[in-house]
Amino acid sequence: MTSLGVFFSPRTIAVIGASREPEKPGHVIFSILLENKKEGLLQAGVYPVNPFVDEILGIKTYPSVKSVPEEVDLAIIVVPASIVPKAMRECGEKGVKGAIVISAGFSEVGNYELEEEVKEIAKEFGIRVVGPNCIGVLSPHTGVDTIFLPTHKVIEGGKRILSTPRPKPGYVALISQSGAFGTAAMDYMVGEGIGLSAFISYGNKADVDEADLLEYFLTDERTRVILMYVESIERGRKVVDVAGKVSLRKPIVALKAGRTKEGARAAASHTAALAGVDEIYEAAFRRCGIIRAYDMEELFDMAKALVMQPPSKGERLAVVTDGGGAGVMATDMAEILGLRVPELKGETREVLEKYRRNGILPRFSSVANPIDLTGSATSDMYLETLKVLMKSDEVDLILVLALHQVPGIEDPAKLARDIGKLVRDYEFSKPVLGVDTGWSEAAILERKEFDLSSIPSYPMPERAVKGAKALYEYGKYLRLKGFLEEYLNKWSPAT
Amino acid sequence: MTSLGVFFSPRTIAVIGASREPEKPGHVIFSILLENKKEGLLQAGVYPVNPFVDEILGIKTYPSVKSVPEEVDLAIIVVPASIVPKAMRECGEKGVKGAIVISAGFSEVGNYELEEEVKEIAKEFGIRVVGPNCIGVLSPHTGVDTIFLPTHKVIEGGKRILSTPRPKPGYVALISQSGAFGTAAMDYMVGEGIGLSAFISYGNKADVDEADLLEYFLTDERTRVILMYVESIERGRKVVDVAGKVSLRKPIVALKAGRTKEGARAAASHTAALAGVDEIYEAAFRRCGIIRAYDMEELFDMAKALVMQPPSKGERLAVVTDGGGAGVMATDMAEILGLRVPELKGETREVLEKYRRNGILPRFSSVANPIDLTGSATSDMYLETLKVLMKSDEVDLILVLALHQVPGIEDPAKLARDIGKLVRDYEFSKPVLGVDTGWSEAAILERKEFDLSSIPSYPMPERAVKGAKALYEYGKYLRLKGFLEEYLNKWSPAT
Repeated sequence: MTSLGVFFSPRTIAVIGASREPEKPGHVIFSILLENKKEGLLQAGVYPVNPFVDEILGIKTYPSVKSVPEEVDLAIIVVPASIVPKAMRECGEKGVKGAIVISAGFSEVGNYELEEEVKEIAKEFGIRVVGPNCIGVLSPHTGVDTIFLPTHKVIEGGKRILSTPRPKPGYVALISQSGAFGTAAMDYMVGEGIGLSAFISYGNKADVDEADLLEYFLTDERTRVILMYVESIERGRKVVDVAGKVSLRKPIVALKAGRTKEGARAAASHTAALAGVDEIYEAAFRRCGIIRAYDMEELFDMAKALVMQPPSKGERLAVVTDGGGAGVMATDMAEILGLRVPELKGETREVLEKYRRNGILPRFSSVANPIDLTGSATSDMYLETLKVLMKSDEVDLILVLALHQVPGIEDPAKLARDIGKLVRDYEFSKPVLGVDTGWSEAAILERKEFDLSSIPSYPMPERAVKGAKALYEYGKYLRLKGFLEEYLNKWSPAT
Repeated sequence: MTSLGVFFSPRTIAVIGASREPEKPGHVIFSILLENKKEGLLQAGVYPVNPFVDEILGIKTYPSVKSVPEEVDLAIIVVPASIVPKAMRECGEKGVKGAIVISAGFSEVGNYELEEEVKEIAKEFGIRVVGPNCIGVLSPHTGVDTIFLPTHKVIEGGKRILSTPRPKPGYVALISQSGAFGTAAMDYMVGEGIGLSAFISYGNKADVDEADLLEYFLTDERTRVILMYVESIERGRKVVDVAGKVSLRKPIVALKAGRTKEGARAAASHTAALAGVDEIYEAAFRRCGIIRAYDMEELFDMAKALVMQPPSKGERLAVVTDGGGAGVMATDMAEILGLRVPELKGETREVLEKYRRNGILPRFSSVANPIDLTGSATSDMYLETLKVLMKSDEVDLILVLALHQVPGIEDPAKLARDIGKLVRDYEFSKPVLGVDTGWSEAAILERKEFDLSSIPSYPMPERAVKGAKALYEYGKYLRLKGFLEEYLNKWSPAT
């Protein structure tokens, strides 16, 4: 079986159904690939295939993939559904390794036979197929991009605005059953500053499915975390087997839609597949170490933590804050999600109490956990507290709520950087997450500096706790399987 | 008893403890009031009281509040705790109506006697007191502002960045037990574009408490929705009585922190008050119509819906989407939160099916609810569908998921405006909420136009559903009390 690498790092690409009409997917895809090539992002050769025109955007076209004067690794097929079998057969004869069939009009609208035909041709020639009825692949590292939605829109007054941005290269792989979820997610990731290793929307999954993709991303060096948006999984046993193996090396987070009865009904009308009983998915995910996100925001909040920080060795969360309320809110959410915010008791508490008496911490701070430094907090107090917590054997994870408003945090960006340095000095020996609330310049800068230091930052205490939960759950799974120590030994921060 | 209006709309203000030292709260408060006065925002006279200097920022000071040459409505007290009783007594002799005691060092650090003394002086002279140990009041409509945190910070490289922004004038009142929660919330509201009618943080609540404030905001014309952040409520019966009355006229949403055992412990160490058993709060809130938010994000997501849209007559939510996945996610969340996304069956379904056959909607759309217009959706299709749903007696609320990426939404901003017009044409006869995901220019513009049309917009389907839940819960309470019809008759959109 050919590796799926051909979909993400092909040497040559043929766009079958490349078009001169600007609105058509066959044009959008070809022009984006061409653009990526011009910019040096895409290394692969790109050939437009269209028997009716001589050139597209100044590039000579070929009447058939068979006439392309090079070997073709990847075919992107954007022709009407009825012609797809012919195009596929030609791909087979040409020796094409993978085909992304963008075209719709197959099983999703009841044309099961046509989809069967595509499958059989694929099998006959050994072509791996993504789709049909999909938006395909986006690989910011290699420039492969089949997202055929208009990049810009022209709104009233003639203003041209960005509509479908692409995330920067990064470490998160996203596997999505829904194309629309994928493009919305791309836009969200850009705004949140989350980098992408690769995105793939597999549509009707005539061939390539979740299990195949998990297997592929296990070996993809750029991918540190795998996200999945799924509504239904057919090869459940296979996915559980593969995911169980992958989870030992890379965390998988899944957002399973269709959890409720009406949600499942909605999913069925959407993909013509049964979403199934949610409890079965819950149990299956648990067994193979798939971490479950319960909404879209949580999916990415978890991803951020898992990319930047190691899994935790236990469930004991220390909360450091300059706002009592934020500390309470974080504690509530932690306890609800199965973490613990235990009252500190031993040596850790003693040292902190001493600091409080010495004036290293404010006299009226609370050091029980949450450690509430109060509005008298200074940047130095955060650093002194964190040193104690990084060394403490009573704490497994640390949540830093550094609300920037207090006067003692003179430079919120510097505090975030200094915390990052401190965590690096302690060799990321336990996971640390950061929070600052709001959208002022100070808040945005503090969070940005946290992120740059590999401390995942969040604008809400509760969202950070969801990130912490993912680190805890992943650590728990690895420990259960006897892999935690090995994993932590190999772990290093993303660069 | 003097009305609390004096705290928000005083005719004259004395700042007792006004200071020349830029870092001191007594300076920050006085200088902000002065600035607001110069800008014409603050109409009240402002007098600095300080016996040790002659002038501050060019303004003549007075040695005592008693020497101020005018009647003084409101005193802002920022002197050391031990001198507060003396200052209060002078306020009494001067006939001051209200005092905001910013100073800390009272019951929160065990100085119960000093706080008792303040209470007794207040009672003796009939002064209403906010605080002590609080950040006080922010009223964007009148320019009263005691938030003494630095507005800007100077970071590395000498760059001056905004740190503590103030929300624009608006319709949301925020009552916060925690000052830090309040300032973080201010920053968040600015970024989310949510306007504020008034903010008050009441600290140790020696006098003015939640019940008083709810009563006040009931009559405050600018306030349409009241938000509360609470950790503990002492006068529980009083709050329930007052809230029950207020809820018939204005929705109240509460975020109660300290829900879990450890959260309650954290709250206790923070405010020295018992957070109490969560079930008791839950039941009390339910009885008096207080809508409960379970995290900070939800608090404001609910506020946004309640400011912009009327309460709903029932729990039946219609979801219109161009992304199947987003529709499924919204349906899941709706069902989990007690709303229903029922399969449409009667005339509504018939009309939509007819549209589908006629080509008014896409041939492969799904009209069961969620109404999935698919990637073939156009702006017109949204409008045609909404007309049907606004008229339908099978639907109580409508959620519009208009993911802007699809080609058929040519101008996402215009679509949002057109939906706003349509809803206005139907006289807001049922609540409508909008979603577009992501942070591209297209997404931001679409959401902004929704908001400007009084359609509350959200970047995530699930967050919009939380807004819808608030509209449903509030409508349910009003119906239960026999007030829904009257309320809806009087309701008009915020302008």
